[in-house]
Amino acid sequence: MPTVLVVYHSETGNTARMAELVAEGAREAGADVVLKSVEETSADELTQYAGIIAGSPTYYGLMSAPLKELFDRSVKFHGQLAGKMGGAFTSSGNIGGGNETTILSILQAMLIHGMVIQGTSEGDHYGAVALARPDARAEAQARALGARVAELAAKLA
Amino acid sequence: MPTVLVVYHSETGNTARMAELVAEGAREAGADVVLKSVEETSADELTQYAGIIAGSPTYYGLMSAPLKELFDRSVKFHGQLAGKMGGAFTSSGNIGGGNETTILSILQAMLIHGMVIQGTSEGDHYGAVALARPDARAEAQARALGARVAELAAKLA
Amino acid sequence: MPTVLVVYHSETGNTARMAELVAEGAREAGADVVLKSVEETSADELTQYAGIIAGSPTYYGLMSAPLKELFDRSVKFHGQLAGKMGGAFTSSGNIGGGNETTILSILQAMLIHGMVIQGTSEGDHYGAVALARPDARAEAQARALGARVAELAAKLA
Amino acid sequence: MPTVLVVYHSETGNTARMAELVAEGAREAGADVVLKSVEETSADELTQYAGIIAGSPTYYGLMSAPLKELFDRSVKFHGQLAGKMGGAFTSSGNIGGGNETTILSILQAMLIHGMVIQGTSEGDHYGAVALARPDARAEAQARALGARVAELAAKLA
Repeated sequence: MPTVLVVYHSETGNTARMAELVAEGAREAGADVVLKSVEETSADELTQYAGIIAGSPTYYGLMSAPLKELFDRSVKFHGQLAGKMGGAFTSSGNIGGGNETTILSILQAMLIHGMVIQGTSEGDHYGAVALARPDARAEAQARALGARVAELAAKLA
Repeated sequence: MPTVLVVYHSETGNTARMAELVAEGAREAGADVVLKSVEETSADELTQYAGIIAGSPTYYGLMSAPLKELFDRSVKFHGQLAGKMGGAFTSSGNIGGGNETTILSILQAMLIHGMVIQGTSEGDHYGAVALARPDARAEAQARALGARVAELAAKLA
Repeated sequence: MPTVLVVYHSETGNTARMAELVAEGAREAGADVVLKSVEETSADELTQYAGIIAGSPTYYGLMSAPLKELFDRSVKFHGQLAGKMGGAFTSSGNIGGGNETTILSILQAMLIHGMVIQGTSEGDHYGAVALARPDARAEAQARALGARVAELAAKLA
Repeated sequence: MPTVLVVYHSETGNTARMAELVAEGAREAGADVVLKSVEETSADELTQYAGIIAGSPTYYGLMSAPLKELFDRSVKFHGQLAGKMGGAFTSSGNIGGGNETTILSILQAMLIHGMVIQGTSEGDHYGAVALARPDARAEAQARALGARVAELAAKLA
């Protein structure tokens, strides 16, 4: 049973809510899940998880500075995250407001760590997106993301 | 009065409808507008416009092959589009479905030509997005895109 | 033993040479490899491979129109490529010339198919890049890409 | 004579050196230039410049957290940077190492502010890239970037 970290930055609570849904999806798919805000998470612990799913509000089309700082600090373990599963989610003000590029910013950082990511052929292809407070659509996307990462992490373990 | 080309690829009519709205916005802002499908447009004519606004359906998160082919053919005028205004729009099946990356794919090709692009601080930041048939929201975004490009093209002329 | 398709578009021979190197890397890692130009490849066959590695010259910062057309046609099997391994490579005129965004354009299309991709913590993080004719550096990157995809495809099989 | 801010984050001095070169290019093209590290720059002052050129080391394929924090803080002036010129540069460890995506991360943030950006048809299309210590190639790209932004800022003023 792989352990998956769901780490998020949230100011308004929308991304935190998405994180809970992602965590539920991963747990239902059989993963052991650690759910933490970025403030509670240190780069030192990243190496101990089989999968990392990171969430950020859409701030200027990219992950927020606090989440980016966690990735910047992770450089001291560069190479040690290779082969782990990754995933990303965001909450955003509006359609076309930078939500896809925010998710891609997280996925790019994960690829540079040598991590493994998977898209989905249905729904939010790159990762789960909420427009403001997660609605039923966003909830389903968030749970599916958690399940996807948990299942692939189990396969790769 | 600058001449702006609005060129689009459309299979279902949604991107074609967006193109009409973009063209209207550009005309209302004072531009002379040429509205053409990608099938009617040759790379040879691209050098004669002060601005080019290109639209594509969201196909695998990127502009469609027919529109890409127009850009690939434009290589024989490489350098001659530098300083012209550019802009992009798309129609997409759903939120998080690749619409932002489709628009960015067009903008990237334009930047490589040395073209000038402008985002917007309100609404669809990178370019106008319709989810399926353009609704009132998408119509406003499309018109605003046309106006934005026309105004800046006039300033740069 | 998974079968991996290495499919490429090449005009000058540089991307074709990268494709051979990627194919060698995949074979050495134990995969059964099919190496084909985009002209020889039909969308119909994509479902039969455990992994697909696609290469394109850097044309306006994106995969070329012929390779994009293959992805556009693959829509009729949408959903059937989910869970397969993907990877990407390019050859490019110069540094900062659009090579990373070309690779990302391929990876984005693969994510939208629900495919699995992996970066690397060393070298060309997103996928293998040649500047013009592949030199020793690019050769190593191309072989490593082939091996990476083959190994993960075997694990996921 | 427009005033252009060149703001950078640098740990090793490479991005700082690029910033000096960008600043020289902008000055030679007639701009009044303010050159500052990100630590010396407050979001409050961003509204007073006609152009902003931002540089970051390539950290996980994106601008570094300190530069991102400046953009995140700029949200309180959201809308007030619309129409200003923008540009971006980076220094990076290697080819394919995330330099293009770092530049695009900065440009995306600028587009979301409604800023105007221009690519170049020659050299580093999206913005100037140094591989480690700027060499003659990178120097020329950096100067050209400064000049490009200064000239367009003058035209738009």
